[in-house]
Amino acid sequence: MKQVSAAEIANLTGGTVFGQSDVQISRVDKLEEAGPLSLSFFSNPKYQDRFFQTQAGIVLIPADFQSDRKFPCTVIKTLNPYYAFCQVLDRYFNPNQHKSGREEQSFVAENAAIGEDVYLGFGSYIDEGSVIENGAKIYPQVYIGRNVRVGAGTVLYPGVKVYSDCVIGAQCIIHSGTVIGSDGFGFAPIGDGSYAKIPQIGNVVIEDHVEIGSNCSIDRATMGSTIIRKGVKLDNLIQVAHNAEIGEHTVIAAQTGVSGSTRIGKRCMVGGQVGFVGHINVADGTQIGAQSGIQKEITEPGQQWIGSPVMPLKEAFRTQVIVRKLPDLQQRIIELEKRIQELTKS
Amino acid sequence: MKQVSAAEIANLTGGTVFGQSDVQISRVDKLEEAGPLSLSFFSNPKYQDRFFQTQAGIVLIPADFQSDRKFPCTVIKTLNPYYAFCQVLDRYFNPNQHKSGREEQSFVAENAAIGEDVYLGFGSYIDEGSVIENGAKIYPQVYIGRNVRVGAGTVLYPGVKVYSDCVIGAQCIIHSGTVIGSDGFGFAPIGDGSYAKIPQIGNVVIEDHVEIGSNCSIDRATMGSTIIRKGVKLDNLIQVAHNAEIGEHTVIAAQTGVSGSTRIGKRCMVGGQVGFVGHINVADGTQIGAQSGIQKEITEPGQQWIGSPVMPLKEAFRTQVIVRKLPDLQQRIIELEKRIQELTKS
Amino acid sequence: MKQVSAAEIANLTGGTVFGQSDVQISRVDKLEEAGPLSLSFFSNPKYQDRFFQTQAGIVLIPADFQSDRKFPCTVIKTLNPYYAFCQVLDRYFNPNQHKSGREEQSFVAENAAIGEDVYLGFGSYIDEGSVIENGAKIYPQVYIGRNVRVGAGTVLYPGVKVYSDCVIGAQCIIHSGTVIGSDGFGFAPIGDGSYAKIPQIGNVVIEDHVEIGSNCSIDRATMGSTIIRKGVKLDNLIQVAHNAEIGEHTVIAAQTGVSGSTRIGKRCMVGGQVGFVGHINVADGTQIGAQSGIQKEITEPGQQWIGSPVMPLKEAFRTQVIVRKLPDLQQRIIELEKRIQELTKS
Repeated sequence: MKQVSAAEIANLTGGTVFGQSDVQISRVDKLEEAGPLSLSFFSNPKYQDRFFQTQAGIVLIPADFQSDRKFPCTVIKTLNPYYAFCQVLDRYFNPNQHKSGREEQSFVAENAAIGEDVYLGFGSYIDEGSVIENGAKIYPQVYIGRNVRVGAGTVLYPGVKVYSDCVIGAQCIIHSGTVIGSDGFGFAPIGDGSYAKIPQIGNVVIEDHVEIGSNCSIDRATMGSTIIRKGVKLDNLIQVAHNAEIGEHTVIAAQTGVSGSTRIGKRCMVGGQVGFVGHINVADGTQIGAQSGIQKEITEPGQQWIGSPVMPLKEAFRTQVIVRKLPDLQQRIIELEKRIQELTKS
Repeated sequence: MKQVSAAEIANLTGGTVFGQSDVQISRVDKLEEAGPLSLSFFSNPKYQDRFFQTQAGIVLIPADFQSDRKFPCTVIKTLNPYYAFCQVLDRYFNPNQHKSGREEQSFVAENAAIGEDVYLGFGSYIDEGSVIENGAKIYPQVYIGRNVRVGAGTVLYPGVKVYSDCVIGAQCIIHSGTVIGSDGFGFAPIGDGSYAKIPQIGNVVIEDHVEIGSNCSIDRATMGSTIIRKGVKLDNLIQVAHNAEIGEHTVIAAQTGVSGSTRIGKRCMVGGQVGFVGHINVADGTQIGAQSGIQKEITEPGQQWIGSPVMPLKEAFRTQVIVRKLPDLQQRIIELEKRIQELTKS
Repeated sequence: MKQVSAAEIANLTGGTVFGQSDVQISRVDKLEEAGPLSLSFFSNPKYQDRFFQTQAGIVLIPADFQSDRKFPCTVIKTLNPYYAFCQVLDRYFNPNQHKSGREEQSFVAENAAIGEDVYLGFGSYIDEGSVIENGAKIYPQVYIGRNVRVGAGTVLYPGVKVYSDCVIGAQCIIHSGTVIGSDGFGFAPIGDGSYAKIPQIGNVVIEDHVEIGSNCSIDRATMGSTIIRKGVKLDNLIQVAHNAEIGEHTVIAAQTGVSGSTRIGKRCMVGGQVGFVGHINVADGTQIGAQSGIQKEITEPGQQWIGSPVMPLKEAFRTQVIVRKLPDLQQRIIELEKRIQELTKS
């Protein structure tokens, strides 16, 4: 079992130990579930009782936390205890121990280029002209079409499919079942009531440090590129249509759909099950509540929206309250009509 | 072709034959499409005309069904004719003839443990430390990560992906494309506008007798477990986020999403395209209509809800009726204003 | 690099060259991004300025386009320039160069029948009794169960899963991750609060010229068939439940769900994230806006609908406008009540 000392944790996270720097932990837990071999963390002063009652061996706490009470164990003060906790998880307790080397029953076309320290899993397929850069991890049953680039250190989990000509940056993570570069949904009516397929000859470009959840569909562009900018985080079961663009560091929750040619700005936060119509722009820093329907441009940056059709958050809440009072309002209108009738008569 | 007699069906289903117990059927059909070689069933007295006109060879009917009219064929009386029909389907007409044995081109890590009567399909992958219990059926192109347990008699259809450390109970069915244990969606902002990944070191625990449809995403917990309790039935394209819990025998229709740390009670029925916000509890026996948005706790058990935001069913229906009358109500307000104006003048 | 002359394009598309018929292009671009080696097209007179300013080498224009201004380059007049452009893309610039022949590590059961010019990709699986007709392209990691038929020229992209007994027509395209024939969602309560699985012994029938996007779930029928009629186009992440039927040339956008036994007519257009309840009919030519909830029959053909619950389009827009005015209406009711009070007193 892994043993990590307070000194090592302080070193990794840039924190300062208060207590015994040689105390060791071998697991991580929430404050209330921790034991003497656990590392835990505490960010929100609201929960300080949990901190003072914890059985943990070491707790990461905010650098500016002050109290008259005696600390229950060795602590490490850092600016951002949650992030520090993540760093420890990532270094010492991450279950994702990626493999290296090429497993049997994998297919690599003759002119594909495979970097160093790459993992090519069992049953994976790398077609002609593709480039897998150093340290990339291609899990079993992944498909990489022709002329694809997979950047350094990027992880494609089992069963990811990448169609030809797509580009995936460095240090990305793409989860199982996600499809990159399937055809955009484009058909031209041809008079007899049927449709001709519009060939989708563009691609998908995913920049660095992007994470995409499982079972997402990111379609290739008709011409040009569907673009996922650096640092974007997409949850599961998300649809991104042809020629859409998601701006840097935008975060989108599960089951949301972005229609064709729509451009979402930087650092937006989008809830789950949201739908965006096609061909609109959404300003930087926009925040959108779950299940919203964005049917028009959002031009002012940094605003909060919700509803289908979408409204500014405050207006939506005000409207929702009144909608629930509609039976009462209707009754009051009937009452008014009666009174008017009476007044008119008299 | 399979031939089954009325006596065999009565024996399997605990029913009683009225008519010839040696009559044989070789197929199953609806009452109105049945012929002399068909078994059919009849539950709802509303459809008794269909029963009396059927050409079926044998019909399963309710034990308490009374009529002055002559039965059109041999019948078998049982308490639950539909369930009895399912039993016959399952025993004699089920197209799912699972294979056994290990097909070529499958990968099993040296220290994985494979039970008896297991099927390991072509292109499947079982990583280190995993245990596949007796009678489990691992179809082609399935991926099983490290230290996974797959319970006895469980069926994983082609292309299911199970990440490391997940636990799947006995007698479960998981359909193609479903991903179990992909990372929960957790990121900590790190000040410069970008995000750090929060390692997701928990797992997914699926108890016995669970069925999960195709292309679902069930994320692993940040710490601890995302839990699907025994007897749960999930339809297709469903999202279950990290640390969520779905209670025993709850049934959820397609394209619904359950956000992080939300706990849904036992024996709930949830419609399609529903969304649950994170960190709420939903009481046992709750019924939720399609496309609802559950944005708050539901504490009273056994109630019916619908809408986004969700309302009690009756209130929602009343409100919907008034919403459709809004143009009329607005007109009546304008009318009232005019009359008041006139009255004030006079 | 491919070189195509105006004469060749005119020949392919049935158009007429005005200008030099020997001018050659080697790429395709939008009017405003085109250079001397580009083919472009122009359909909408609204954009004629872009046409007159283009740097393109050849432009496809409408047969009836008239102007006093001098054309900027060689043009080809056709009845439907966009469709003609698609024809050129498809013939000369399509990146989908499908392979032929059987790759290593593919599995074909002994009594499966494989036609001529078929591609069987690495890691694909064709089970007993299945028939793959001439020119079909089965990409890597595809699974085909027992007794499946895949029609001539049909393309199944990497990772498509087709369960036993399903039928796929000719000239279809099915994108990665889509599952055809997983079990319909059918369970019978058995008294103790748990459910018995209703065996799903039907199949899925997909007619000719159907395109289905990535990560869709098309469930097999309980008995009989779930049917996708000829020419239907489905986008990504769509749910089609057991015994549903989608009529000829109907087009459905991403993330929509069709519940069990619902029949959608011919030539309908359905937006994204729409939900249909089960057991209803939707008339031919119906158009439904995004995020709608169709909770009842639509009997009149060719109408436009939107909303959840759905309303005729015009009524929905009128209602939406009033919903946004609700705070104002409430205020006017309060005002009226005050005035009545004053009038009653005086």
